Amino acid sequence: GFAKVDHHRKKRQGFAEVIYGEGKTADQIISIVQALRARNNEILVTRVSKEKAEVILYTCPELTYNETAHILFWKDETGPIKNKRGYIAVIAAGTSDLRVAEEAAVTAEVLGSNVHRIYDVGVAGIHRLLNHAEEIQQATVSVVVAGMEGALPSVVGGLVSHPVIAVPTSIGYGANFHGLSALLTMLNSCASGISVVNIDNGFGGGYNAVLIHQL
Amino acid sequence: GFAKVDHHRKKRQGFAEVIYGEGKTADQIISIVQALRARNNEILVTRVSKEKAEVILYTCPELTYNETAHILFWKDETGPIKNKRGYIAVIAAGTSDLRVAEEAAVTAEVLGSNVHRIYDVGVAGIHRLLNHAEEIQQATVSVVVAGMEGALPSVVGGLVSHPVIAVPTSIGYGANFHGLSALLTMLNSCASGISVVNIDNGFGGGYNAVLIHQL
Amino acid sequence: GFAKVDHHRKKRQGFAEVIYGEGKTADQIISIVQALRARNNEILVTRVSKEKAEVILYTCPELTYNETAHILFWKDETGPIKNKRGYIAVIAAGTSDLRVAEEAAVTAEVLGSNVHRIYDVGVAGIHRLLNHAEEIQQATVSVVVAGMEGALPSVVGGLVSHPVIAVPTSIGYGANFHGLSALLTMLNSCASGISVVNIDNGFGGGYNAVLIHQL
Amino acid sequence: GFAKVDHHRKKRQGFAEVIYGEGKTADQIISIVQALRARNNEILVTRVSKEKAEVILYTCPELTYNETAHILFWKDETGPIKNKRGYIAVIAAGTSDLRVAEEAAVTAEVLGSNVHRIYDVGVAGIHRLLNHAEEIQQATVSVVVAGMEGALPSVVGGLVSHPVIAVPTSIGYGANFHGLSALLTMLNSCASGISVVNIDNGFGGGYNAVLIHQL
Amino acid sequence: GFAKVDHHRKKRQGFAEVIYGEGKTADQIISIVQALRARNNEILVTRVSKEKAEVILYTCPELTYNETAHILFWKDETGPIKNKRGYIAVIAAGTSDLRVAEEAAVTAEVLGSNVHRIYDVGVAGIHRLLNHAEEIQQATVSVVVAGMEGALPSVVGGLVSHPVIAVPTSIGYGANFHGLSALLTMLNSCASGISVVNIDNGFGGGYNAVLIHQL
Amino acid sequence: GFAKVDHHRKKRQGFAEVIYGEGKTADQIISIVQALRARNNEILVTRVSKEKAEVILYTCPELTYNETAHILFWKDETGPIKNKRGYIAVIAAGTSDLRVAEEAAVTAEVLGSNVHRIYDVGVAGIHRLLNHAEEIQQATVSVVVAGMEGALPSVVGGLVSHPVIAVPTSIGYGANFHGLSALLTMLNSCASGISVVNIDNGFGGGYNAVLIHQL
Amino acid sequence: GFAKVDHHRKKRQGFAEVIYGEGKTADQIISIVQALRARNNEILVTRVSKEKAEVILYTCPELTYNETAHILFWKDETGPIKNKRGYIAVIAAGTSDLRVAEEAAVTAEVLGSNVHRIYDVGVAGIHRLLNHAEEIQQATVSVVVAGMEGALPSVVGGLVSHPVIAVPTSIGYGANFHGLSALLTMLNSCASGISVVNIDNGFGGGYNAVLIHQL
Amino acid sequence: GFAKVDHHRKKRQGFAEVIYGEGKTADQIISIVQALRARNNEILVTRVSKEKAEVILYTCPELTYNETAHILFWKDETGPIKNKRGYIAVIAAGTSDLRVAEEAAVTAEVLGSNVHRIYDVGVAGIHRLLNHAEEIQQATVSVVVAGMEGALPSVVGGLVSHPVIAVPTSIGYGANFHGLSALLTMLNSCASGISVVNIDNGFGGGYNAVLIHQL
Ligand SMILES: Nc1ncnc2c1ncn2[C@@H]1O[C@H](COP(=O)(O)O)[C@@H](O)[C@H]1O
Ligand SMILES: Nc1ncnc2c1ncn2[C@@H]1O[C@H](COP(=O)(O)O)[C@@H](O)[C@H]1O
Ligand SMILES: Nc1ncnc2c1ncn2[C@@H]1O[C@H](COP(=O)(O)O)[C@@H](O)[C@H]1O
Ligand SMILES: Nc1ncnc2c1ncn2[C@@H]1O[C@H](COP(=O)(O)O)[C@@H](O)[C@H]1O
Ligand SMILES: [Mg+2]
Ligand SMILES: [Mg+2]
Ligand SMILES: [Mg+2]
Ligand SMILES: [Mg+2]
Ligand SMILES: [Mg+2]
Ligand SMILES: [Mg+2]
Ligand SMILES: [Mg+2]
Ligand SMILES: [Mg+2]
Repeated sequence: GFAKVDHHRKKRQGFAEVIYGEGKTADQIISIVQALRARNNEILVTRVSKEKAEVILYTCPELTYNETAHILFWKDETGPIKNKRGYIAVIAAGTSDLRVAEEAAVTAEVLGSNVHRIYDVGVAGIHRLLNHAEEIQQATVSVVVAGMEGALPSVVGGLVSHPVIAVPTSIGYGANFHGLSALLTMLNSCASGISVVNIDNGFGGGYNAVLIHQL
Repeated sequence: GFAKVDHHRKKRQGFAEVIYGEGKTADQIISIVQALRARNNEILVTRVSKEKAEVILYTCPELTYNETAHILFWKDETGPIKNKRGYIAVIAAGTSDLRVAEEAAVTAEVLGSNVHRIYDVGVAGIHRLLNHAEEIQQATVSVVVAGMEGALPSVVGGLVSHPVIAVPTSIGYGANFHGLSALLTMLNSCASGISVVNIDNGFGGGYNAVLIHQL
Repeated sequence: GFAKVDHHRKKRQGFAEVIYGEGKTADQIISIVQALRARNNEILVTRVSKEKAEVILYTCPELTYNETAHILFWKDETGPIKNKRGYIAVIAAGTSDLRVAEEAAVTAEVLGSNVHRIYDVGVAGIHRLLNHAEEIQQATVSVVVAGMEGALPSVVGGLVSHPVIAVPTSIGYGANFHGLSALLTMLNSCASGISVVNIDNGFGGGYNAVLIHQL
Repeated sequence: GFAKVDHHRKKRQGFAEVIYGEGKTADQIISIVQALRARNNEILVTRVSKEKAEVILYTCPELTYNETAHILFWKDETGPIKNKRGYIAVIAAGTSDLRVAEEAAVTAEVLGSNVHRIYDVGVAGIHRLLNHAEEIQQATVSVVVAGMEGALPSVVGGLVSHPVIAVPTSIGYGANFHGLSALLTMLNSCASGISVVNIDNGFGGGYNAVLIHQL
Repeated sequence: GFAKVDHHRKKRQGFAEVIYGEGKTADQIISIVQALRARNNEILVTRVSKEKAEVILYTCPELTYNETAHILFWKDETGPIKNKRGYIAVIAAGTSDLRVAEEAAVTAEVLGSNVHRIYDVGVAGIHRLLNHAEEIQQATVSVVVAGMEGALPSVVGGLVSHPVIAVPTSIGYGANFHGLSALLTMLNSCASGISVVNIDNGFGGGYNAVLIHQL
Repeated sequence: GFAKVDHHRKKRQGFAEVIYGEGKTADQIISIVQALRARNNEILVTRVSKEKAEVILYTCPELTYNETAHILFWKDETGPIKNKRGYIAVIAAGTSDLRVAEEAAVTAEVLGSNVHRIYDVGVAGIHRLLNHAEEIQQATVSVVVAGMEGALPSVVGGLVSHPVIAVPTSIGYGANFHGLSALLTMLNSCASGISVVNIDNGFGGGYNAVLIHQL
Repeated sequence: GFAKVDHHRKKRQGFAEVIYGEGKTADQIISIVQALRARNNEILVTRVSKEKAEVILYTCPELTYNETAHILFWKDETGPIKNKRGYIAVIAAGTSDLRVAEEAAVTAEVLGSNVHRIYDVGVAGIHRLLNHAEEIQQATVSVVVAGMEGALPSVVGGLVSHPVIAVPTSIGYGANFHGLSALLTMLNSCASGISVVNIDNGFGGGYNAVLIHQL
Repeated sequence: GFAKVDHHRKKRQGFAEVIYGEGKTADQIISIVQALRARNNEILVTRVSKEKAEVILYTCPELTYNETAHILFWKDETGPIKNKRGYIAVIAAGTSDLRVAEEAAVTAEVLGSNVHRIYDVGVAGIHRLLNHAEEIQQATVSVVVAGMEGALPSVVGGLVSHPVIAVPTSIGYGANFHGLSALLTMLNSCASGISVVNIDNGFGGGYNAVLIHQL
């Protein structure tokens, strides 16, 4: 067919191929889902609009759709619990960053990790973040999602002793250049334990956090 | 001659023409200084290297050179004290931002304002800034100087009720792009009372602060 | 809920949290408005389309909608008049810059300042600006809004002795790059008392002017 | 040899090939000069450093070197005067723009046109320009040279009824990006009769003005 | 009202204010047209869609609409013929560049100049251009319109002894960046008598050509 | 003094403040080193030239200088071994990437982790990488350093089940734009477990890897 | 008419003019097709939407439409077979790159070459590519199509001894910048026999491959 | 050692590893040369300064240095002549492009192909190119080297029926952006058989041409 599903990936990398839903038709997604389900893999489809999800759910009713995260998934609830200890902190700067933050959080949960959500704690009112300092410091790893000037990971990075995955979002306007501003901020952070994924790549943030959390 | 000194400016704008020293020869600077001094104006020459300053001081010994700020100046100490109330807070993120911060601070002092300096309080160790919260909040206006990711003005902007002038510096490397990263951060700040001047423009930061302080 | 309204902000910063309406649903805006109104705060919601405004007004009929500025607001007319002296000059280059100029002007009025509007005085016919020189010079602070080449703040900056807040707009085409041209012009101004906010950020221009006007 | 001198150009285009001196050795320049002089062409070599000029003058003593313009030339003083009527106005914003302005002015003079120089009349003190309005308005064509924000051509363009050639310079720092700021300003001018040449291309400004002046 | 029509412009600059139609409502255009017509000015409105034009023509039936050029105009046919000698060559590279080329050509005709159109002569088949060499060489001035790589002005510039106004268009895709490629090509041309206007600015090309043609 | 050393950092973040040596004088570095040594902290100074290192070593002879990595350090060999299990794989594409790769490797070793170096295994000869597949797959975390097109992390990311920290270098020319090409490649990787640090930020790569390795 | 069809091209370049369908109306395409068909040329129209194709097919029923490639064509099946030996390998990284890959493949087939398609073999699962190594190595020339990080041509380039034409696609988001990331990757490849065409220019990839294949 | 020489490459790709000299020490180059010579491979080292070449030649006297091309090489003159038919045309626009053009030409000659050099035939005097039309048309493949606006490949591409490899150079100033202008021109060419290599990558141009010539 049109795609070579990488069935070897689960063995090689620990998780089956994740489906990037943007630009794929419902039919294409269904056929990949079925190929993966045939081997009892967990299913994670990102960037799925509500309309497309409804079409897919009609054929694959065992999947669940998370509307904020735009994610379709199937999770093996009967499988071994991967990591009981600890949790991933998913931290978001503003209410506009929710879609990306939830993409990270749901990705992590589907792949078997616990998540604590700490949202709307942007740097313009720093006390809101400091109120959650302890909860953040006790996480195994943090995913920090921010748009506009993207300063939040620098502040979080200075408070914790664990790795921080920074996710810039495209929220903003004018000289924001669709997330470029936040991306550059995060790459140039003067705090030390920060690494960065692509603009709006909540999935990448969640996936990296899971790899670290489940070591 | 080669230049039309804007002698009308002091009347129109409150201060005589300030001389941008970069790219001007010592001789050109001396001739403009003498034209301005002839009318008893205060003198402010920015971006003057130590070597150039020494040549100029030989001819114009009444000037003073500030080496960190790269500024040559003459200030009318006998003139009326412009503003007794309040002060300008000049805040810098890292020790590498000192030259630009001092350009702002010395500019403000030469033009007649009081300055409080609060340096090396970058966001990666936020407690250092919070230790000075009160001193900052009681200023009339803040000038916040930062390079690398340039996040400091956003945090300061969220703590105070006065205007903040943000000055990005070109300190950094790689995806910093000579200060572009800090500039974009500051333009996209989600804190509200922040306006921005050009990269490394400590003079502009100080001058704007003086206009506000001496209202 | 989804948002942590920063109720402490009025105390810390002088004004309650301003709501950025873009990308928020009418329901989200209503719930934040109600939380703020519960403590008798003034209300300022920017970037609200006419359609969204009508939905919100149905539930919150005490608000007023300014269609040119795209602003929804509630202003405490019975409160103390903040600043009787002086006014803010809001100056716009072309008729296409009106939306942003009004965002600045209405923001300033809702937050309690007087505004003089001087519109369609772009540099291609400099006499139009010079005709208003005195009115501009007597303001406490100017907000100068311009698109295309964005040259107007430089000329205004050379005429006045008070601070100028420059607001680039995204009006233009081709090598304008959605306002980048005007932004760079303003950051590089050779006039001295100019600071800059983000492209199309009329709100930021008005807010900064208010902080200065109400010192 | 290494170069194919375009001897047909004088016939086709009115002027012999102009030599771009940057990156050429003194020897290469001498050999092209001699090929052109053999047919009695006028000589114009741009971007020649003082050191290189001295080497060339040793072999070609009939040339003249203009140090500010960095131009080496030989002009047929006995030839027919090309255009007695009118003159080209070369207008420069700041004293730092002199090299480029002189590159334009000397190019025009060598190619046979009269030039009026109006320098240091940048927009931050608009009265300086307005003092020369009549002299500018009576020119056949203007070349306007400006760095930093590059706003001068827009103001000149609004005062005159003849064509304006705008020359951005690389003078500036930070978000000037080596002249990009001035270039974009000029391309986006809202005044109508303005066209633009490359950053620092004084030669192009002068050459275009001559073509227009000598129509 | 909302606009300050620059009635003095015809005296100062030779032509009345031209109306940039993009972003203006039909009502706004009608009211400016009527203000200009009241003083018997020629009318030129650029960037008018067919729909908007029809609304305006209903109120102002004396105007004419050129659909390819997107221009509405009224031309004083009884006025003095401005320039009988010579013509402007408007040269276009591809069939996709027609809208911009016609914006230039119609602008020039409305302002009283003769135009020769030479279209679809891009550099990939250079014989097509060379077939028209004589017609091009005998023009007073050329306007050269090209998208994609924008190489045509360099070739034309090497063939003629008159000024060339280069107009880059936004035709292209990928690394064309909406006309940036053609713009940079034209600014960097190694042919000598070329100056450049903004991307897609056919009006600017035509207007500059008229100023030169009618000297 | 000029700097506020963040002595609280070791407690808060696990490691004492690391000194970024670029742009600091030998004297400044010595005084910070002494402040940190006074509390028996490990010392890590990055970006120190050989000349500067020699000056510092004269005063602080207990430090060691690694010339390839440009790092000065002092490591508490008597302290508890932090992590006996596993190792960090530091993988480099070309011999030109050595400085950055060693900055990562030495950082990791000074902070107490084991490192395996796998160098000169770029994608243009993929068999060289595949020869080391097993050694890479058994690491706890990989740091992948590459310049030019920066494709190596994508290939490594597809082979392993642990987190990959990608470090772009500025090696290349032309359309490489000082490492931008490699940076964008890494941010856009279609492999899943990759996060990215700034161009040439070997320190960041090593530090993040240590945080993960020592969980 | 509006276009000058380059009838001489088949003689000069081996193939008749190819029609770039984007931005042309169905009527314009029909009239060019008829002019070309009148001389019995093969027909290749790229970038034709399904709707436009249906209109054209109604008038020109001898054409065939390939929906994935967005290409309309007519191929002279009775003509001499151009090249029996060898084939072009068209290799694509992901299923989202299919449209561009098919534009290359169908172009090559219409112009008379054999094509082997090897799709969905991106670098994140390198074994998929290596499984086809022999088939790729035996091609005369490869066209390698990839979006996102665009790393595939580097790996292919290191496996083969024939020329590789790299085609970046605009597939991706965030810091992909509409294909810029893949374009820069390919231009900076450290493998040696790679040259690059514009983003999404499948036609250019196929055409270049045909010129090489049919030498 | 520090490098893994890819000895398998000659078998896999037809030529031994080529050494990129920039950034390598003379010692590093000598050790790689010796490793390659030990297996009797041809040697090609690009980007070697005269000084570095002299050091290497002292140890490896059998190598030859080409000063214009900055190339060190050893060519097996006794080996089989690879391709007697045909030749590669290396075409350069200006005398400043010579270094890059010679890098292409010498690369091709060392790898066993015949080269015809056609230099200083830029588009500003198109007759110079047309004078060589036949010689160019009879080549098997062309390498076209151009800086500034980079228009030459488009014109050559329209004259020939063989593949054209375009090499942009960094020659130019201002809005040339170190060769970006020429690069974009070439990527956007409306001629059909053109593919592009990196800025200043004469080696890449020559190498690709050899692969095509020796098919
Ligand atoms: N300062 C300058 N800036 C831009 N172009 C120039 C300059 N001086 C000379 N030229 C042009 O460069 C061409 C010479 O190119 P070349 O063959 O490299 O010497 C001349 O024909 C002029 O058109
Ligand atoms: N298509 C166009 N492109 C650029 N500028 C234009 C165009 N049409 C009109 N203009 C200019 O825009 C000015 C009108 O601006 P406005 O006040 O917004 O109507 C006129 O004076 C013209 O110089
Ligand atoms: N090579 C490096 N690249 C980026 N950041 C670094 C580097 N070396 C040290 N740092 C960080 O820079 C901070 C020190 O900044 P400063 O106050 O300027 O010395 C340290 O806390 C480190 O987190
Ligand atoms: N998809 C495509 N991408 C780039 N160029 C194309 C494409 N399709 C056709 N062309 C070229 O565009 C030229 C046609 O241009 P036009 O005169 O506008 O139809 C043809 O000669 C082809 O070389
Ligand atoms: Mg909030
Ligand atoms: Mg510090
Ligand atoms: Mg107007
Ligand atoms: Mg001056
Ligand atoms: Mg055509
Ligand atoms: Mg190697
Ligand atoms: Mg796939
Ligand atoms: Mg030449």
